[in-house]
Amino acid sequence: MLIECVPNFSEGRRSEVIQKIISAIDSVAGVRVLHQTSDPDHNRTVVTFAGDIAAVEEAAFRGIEEAARLIDMRQHQGVHPRIGAADVVPFVPLEGATMDDCIQLAHRVGRRVGDELNIPVYMYADAATNPARHDLATIRRGQYEDLLTAIQTDPARKPDYGPAELGAAGATAIGARGPLIAFNVYLSTQDVQIARAIARAIRHSSGGLRYVKAMGVPVRGRAQVSMNLTDFTRTPIYRVIEMIRREAARYGVTIVSSEVIGLIPQAALFDAAQWYLQIEGDVAQQVLEAALASFAQNKVEKSAP
Amino acid sequence: MLIECVPNFSEGRRSEVIQKIISAIDSVAGVRVLHQTSDPDHNRTVVTFAGDIAAVEEAAFRGIEEAARLIDMRQHQGVHPRIGAADVVPFVPLEGATMDDCIQLAHRVGRRVGDELNIPVYMYADAATNPARHDLATIRRGQYEDLLTAIQTDPARKPDYGPAELGAAGATAIGARGPLIAFNVYLSTQDVQIARAIARAIRHSSGGLRYVKAMGVPVRGRAQVSMNLTDFTRTPIYRVIEMIRREAARYGVTIVSSEVIGLIPQAALFDAAQWYLQIEGDVAQQVLEAALASFAQNKVEKSAP
Repeated sequence: MLIECVPNFSEGRRSEVIQKIISAIDSVAGVRVLHQTSDPDHNRTVVTFAGDIAAVEEAAFRGIEEAARLIDMRQHQGVHPRIGAADVVPFVPLEGATMDDCIQLAHRVGRRVGDELNIPVYMYADAATNPARHDLATIRRGQYEDLLTAIQTDPARKPDYGPAELGAAGATAIGARGPLIAFNVYLSTQDVQIARAIARAIRHSSGGLRYVKAMGVPVRGRAQVSMNLTDFTRTPIYRVIEMIRREAARYGVTIVSSEVIGLIPQAALFDAAQWYLQIEGDVAQQVLEAALASFAQNKVEKSAP
Repeated sequence: MLIECVPNFSEGRRSEVIQKIISAIDSVAGVRVLHQTSDPDHNRTVVTFAGDIAAVEEAAFRGIEEAARLIDMRQHQGVHPRIGAADVVPFVPLEGATMDDCIQLAHRVGRRVGDELNIPVYMYADAATNPARHDLATIRRGQYEDLLTAIQTDPARKPDYGPAELGAAGATAIGARGPLIAFNVYLSTQDVQIARAIARAIRHSSGGLRYVKAMGVPVRGRAQVSMNLTDFTRTPIYRVIEMIRREAARYGVTIVSSEVIGLIPQAALFDAAQWYLQIEGDVAQQVLEAALASFAQNKVEKSAP
């Protein structure tokens, strides 16, 4: 059973801090760090790791613990919304794992973080304890600064685990979800209002595409549309970027580049190639490496006693 | 050592004939048929199979033998140039194999086809015995019908193996080459002259892109630009189709669809997705499945004694 974990930490600038957090995760046997992206403007690092369920549980806890030790949210600044040092910790079922496995795992980690680290924990996405907390945006409303008082005064902001009180490590959202693509598009303008207008146009919450979350932020001196594509099989990445392209054109703006944060399922790239190249049929069925993998698999089966 | 073989047979209509040829190939232990495409207008079937070198040698021979038994070139009609029942048989080095392995393999099969099946064989591409025969177009000039007399009268058309005389099975080109992408583009016109003009514009031989071979043919009632992309790392598929799109626009014509014949390396699709989506960096390094494969690999290594 293989579980993926994609924690987001509120540090994208101090490489020694980032390295210590990743080392804490990587110190668990049976876990492998697959990818890391740090952004100084977001001031945030996204780590992708995977392993069996027990190893991932321990590694997630150690990563949260180390982040809480090294990051002081009272000093933190960055363009990405955040409530804590270990801001968001989602678990994703991969080979042989179910969403239910990840929901239970998320709650075990959540309880431990609350009890042992004294950090307030909000369960989100498929691990949410009520529908209002499904969406991260609700949990992060007002960010760390507003949550300082809201967590004590607003019953709706009471955490699922840990104290109703924020320390320097802030709070952590822990959840279970399907795979998503974190995808950012850079525009040929510094005007972040244009990125925000485009984000409103394309995202589900304000009338746009069903499986898109989006916001406009300033990154590297450009306006960036920062997105989560929560089901690329239904709202494909090419349709999203072409809609952004068209909306941007309305302001005389073009797309300069894009970036994928973390990992991306190969099917999303095959789909995009197939769409732009107008290839008939399902080109994923014609991929050489996949055909050879099935060949190797078959050889193994044939040679088994 | 893994070798790929991509024989092209001059039968794309009679499914029982196609099936018998594929069965002959598949009857060899250690060989696996990975893909098959049959086109009734081309009247041609492209089979992709792979295996270790001895198995591929035997399977290629059996496929050629069965095609010679079942296909009568005196009756054959189709839009794709051809000289024989088994028209072209290229060997491609995959994992652990070199081009030299494939050149020697091609010559062994060529000699056997000449000697045992009494079929004239022309060695081509990297297995060619002189530079003029590197290119298939030279070998196939005038096709089966012209070759009937030319093979007897023109010293330049003397085969490398087998008799200088054509029977019902015609002649076979056997060679060694690197991986290529067979890629066809359908236009929104029946006018095959437009496809021919576009083919001339984009192909290397008449001033176009370095690693493109192209011709215009009528297929399914549409003009088709039929291509071999002989090095997609240097002349990428997206650049080719965008050039076709622009040339077609000059005639008021658009691209309706495209098709990949046989298999395509995943890097060609990743590259296309990356280009169209304008993704920074090398997105192939961020593919989830590749990361997980390296994880599985590492687990195996770790658990080794």
